[in-house]
Amino acid sequence: MIDPESFRKAGERIDDLERSGLHILQDPERFCFGMDAVLLSGFARIREGENVLDLGTGTGILPLLLSAKTKAHSITGLEIQPESADMARRSVEMNGLSDKISIVTGDAGRASEIFGKGSFDAVVSNPPYMIADHGIRNPEEAKWIARHETTADLEDFLRETASVLTDRGHAFYVHRPFRLADLFCLSRENGLEPKRMQLVYPFSDKEPNMVLLECVKGGRPRLTVEKPLIVYERPGVYTREIYDIYGY
Amino acid sequence: MIDPESFRKAGERIDDLERSGLHILQDPERFCFGMDAVLLSGFARIREGENVLDLGTGTGILPLLLSAKTKAHSITGLEIQPESADMARRSVEMNGLSDKISIVTGDAGRASEIFGKGSFDAVVSNPPYMIADHGIRNPEEAKWIARHETTADLEDFLRETASVLTDRGHAFYVHRPFRLADLFCLSRENGLEPKRMQLVYPFSDKEPNMVLLECVKGGRPRLTVEKPLIVYERPGVYTREIYDIYGY
Repeated sequence: MIDPESFRKAGERIDDLERSGLHILQDPERFCFGMDAVLLSGFARIREGENVLDLGTGTGILPLLLSAKTKAHSITGLEIQPESADMARRSVEMNGLSDKISIVTGDAGRASEIFGKGSFDAVVSNPPYMIADHGIRNPEEAKWIARHETTADLEDFLRETASVLTDRGHAFYVHRPFRLADLFCLSRENGLEPKRMQLVYPFSDKEPNMVLLECVKGGRPRLTVEKPLIVYERPGVYTREIYDIYGY
Repeated sequence: MIDPESFRKAGERIDDLERSGLHILQDPERFCFGMDAVLLSGFARIREGENVLDLGTGTGILPLLLSAKTKAHSITGLEIQPESADMARRSVEMNGLSDKISIVTGDAGRASEIFGKGSFDAVVSNPPYMIADHGIRNPEEAKWIARHETTADLEDFLRETASVLTDRGHAFYVHRPFRLADLFCLSRENGLEPKRMQLVYPFSDKEPNMVLLECVKGGRPRLTVEKPLIVYERPGVYTREIYDIYGY
């Protein structure tokens, strides 16, 4: 095995994913993955032999976790920021997963141009949460920011998800509950039917702070809402379910 | 006080609502109100002086509960089935609430024709849950059933809700989680923006069986998802919150 240190650049650290011996390069000054990515990897149902796309992969946490968890044939991570894509690529090499995971530098809003239509069986995505034009009055300016500064918006993500999926392909997202109406309506408008949803509540008596959603391209309308996913039993102590998802 | 028995017809019973001395006439052979109506009366935020419509009032449970709970100026219940409307009307008289509550016999799908546009500050509704055309192949037949046998469908309810509401008026529904995508998308298509949602879980580790939703006519997109409403602490024992809602 090649020395993991040879993949690390200045400022980066190597974190143990405590799963199948996997490690990930992260730069705490830039971005570290959160619980949302881990919960999405637990929520996504990827079947044996599928080709999976992670739209906006960041430093590649989802492809790494899914490579250990599923029997996917291939996992592709698309990331617009070259520095993040580079870190993701080095993490993949460091874990010896280059035959299974590919990292592509590019815009999630142009995924179907990059990969072609109908090229994946499943898409996973942890898209940017905040509305690009929040507080901005000029619609032209808002559009500019949505397209440039903040790259693709939710509508772009969902349109491209639908476009790169095969018919009856599955899409799995994690998002914030305050965007739930957008998530449902934009999914449906793009031919992605919401089929399974789970709300994540930090405590059993608190508002949810994440939503996990599975859509099927061309699916028939009927949603299953799962039991609540509660994160903490008490402050600092995860529930059994969270330990299960982290430790699968 | 007039003898309550004088309002009762054969086969009907008088049930104590255990709230402000209210009673309701019900016929166990026809229909008895459920927890959904009670939870909706706890979820709805009706302000002082408002004119409220209950779309599909059945035997009038929501107008009765809301008359005790809120400072609404008037509450109108619209019900298509003459026998149910008649029972609701007699319950209103029996409780001495005829100055506050009116029961109108008519189709929820024609509410704006009956009452006029922009005639209510708030609408509450516990619409029929099941999809009318479930399993029916002939679209003409399905349409007929949606319009006749099963009266108005969800789209009709939401269109009429939007139509009878004033601008920025509030709508409160209870429905089943499997229709959540329909509820969000049809609300938005009709100009009702989902603003507040609560899922009702029978037990903390079970799938939800009801969803409570507040929409605002012409509201800005941003949804608040509330903490889970858990019904049972253990089999047969309600949680504190349910006792609070029943006993407000």
